[in-house]
Amino acid sequence: MNEIPGDIDFSGLKVRRLEPNDLEMICVHRETMFLEAGGVPSELQVMSEHFRPWLRQRLADGRYYGFALLNDGQPVAAVGLMSIEWPPHPSHPSLDQRGYVLNVFVEPAYRRRGLASALMKLAEAEFARRGVSFAVLHATQAGRPVYEELGWAATAEMSKAIG
Amino acid sequence: MNEIPGDIDFSGLKVRRLEPNDLEMICVHRETMFLEAGGVPSELQVMSEHFRPWLRQRLADGRYYGFALLNDGQPVAAVGLMSIEWPPHPSHPSLDQRGYVLNVFVEPAYRRRGLASALMKLAEAEFARRGVSFAVLHATQAGRPVYEELGWAATAEMSKAIG
Repeated sequence: MNEIPGDIDFSGLKVRRLEPNDLEMICVHRETMFLEAGGVPSELQVMSEHFRPWLRQRLADGRYYGFALLNDGQPVAAVGLMSIEWPPHPSHPSLDQRGYVLNVFVEPAYRRRGLASALMKLAEAEFARRGVSFAVLHATQAGRPVYEELGWAATAEMSKAIG
Repeated sequence: MNEIPGDIDFSGLKVRRLEPNDLEMICVHRETMFLEAGGVPSELQVMSEHFRPWLRQRLADGRYYGFALLNDGQPVAAVGLMSIEWPPHPSHPSLDQRGYVLNVFVEPAYRRRGLASALMKLAEAEFARRGVSFAVLHATQAGRPVYEELGWAATAEMSKAIG
């Protein structure tokens, strides 16, 4: 774990890289995150059924990476990271990938002490270490101020349900 | 071309699917699109150097698909489409992909007659045909009203340059 920057304050918690064993924890974090953002429980259950095998493969082969914060050996917060294929773009003209941050989650009892912000600093350091020079995420309303404080800004992405 | 919906008005132009031979046309469209949006020419040249081989592979194997509109056999407008890997998400809970629309471009002499809108209707029909139920794009300022009119809405994506 010598790649963990020493200048990030984890409020006394231990930090380690995500492992295949974190599968269920990440699934619970993702579902809870979307529930807290107003998601429909039955739809989120369907999502988790499909997300679990998707994630299992990617935790195993390293396409999904990231960090967990531990209290007494138990994960209480985590961040997921991916290097996603993307066409070379004005924001990364010579690179065909960008970073993606997902499933940023801090358990309720551990909030309001800067852990999400610490995880995001760790995420940026990890992207930099991997040569990923531009990253995106999708913010919940609760998350947006944290990201803005760290210099993230809204993009012009738009979406539509098809058909 | 029997998959081209008959109810879209292409203002008298012919429509066909993108082909490997469209490589340079798409590169020029992409660079011009970003130039018109205020991009830095030297950076866009670097982008195109890297985008060209990236696109060549994907036009060849079909990962980049889409449509061109032709006047007298010459492409005057086009839309690029991809089905990109994405974790199952509340907007597509049982699917691990979403559609991506890029490089929507209409040559200046052919603007203001609804061609971008026609290309977007074609894009949606193509996604529907492929079972892609949710799609995203990044809008230029000039493009945003066209997409809004068609029911596209801003997402909560945020970005940051790393390092």
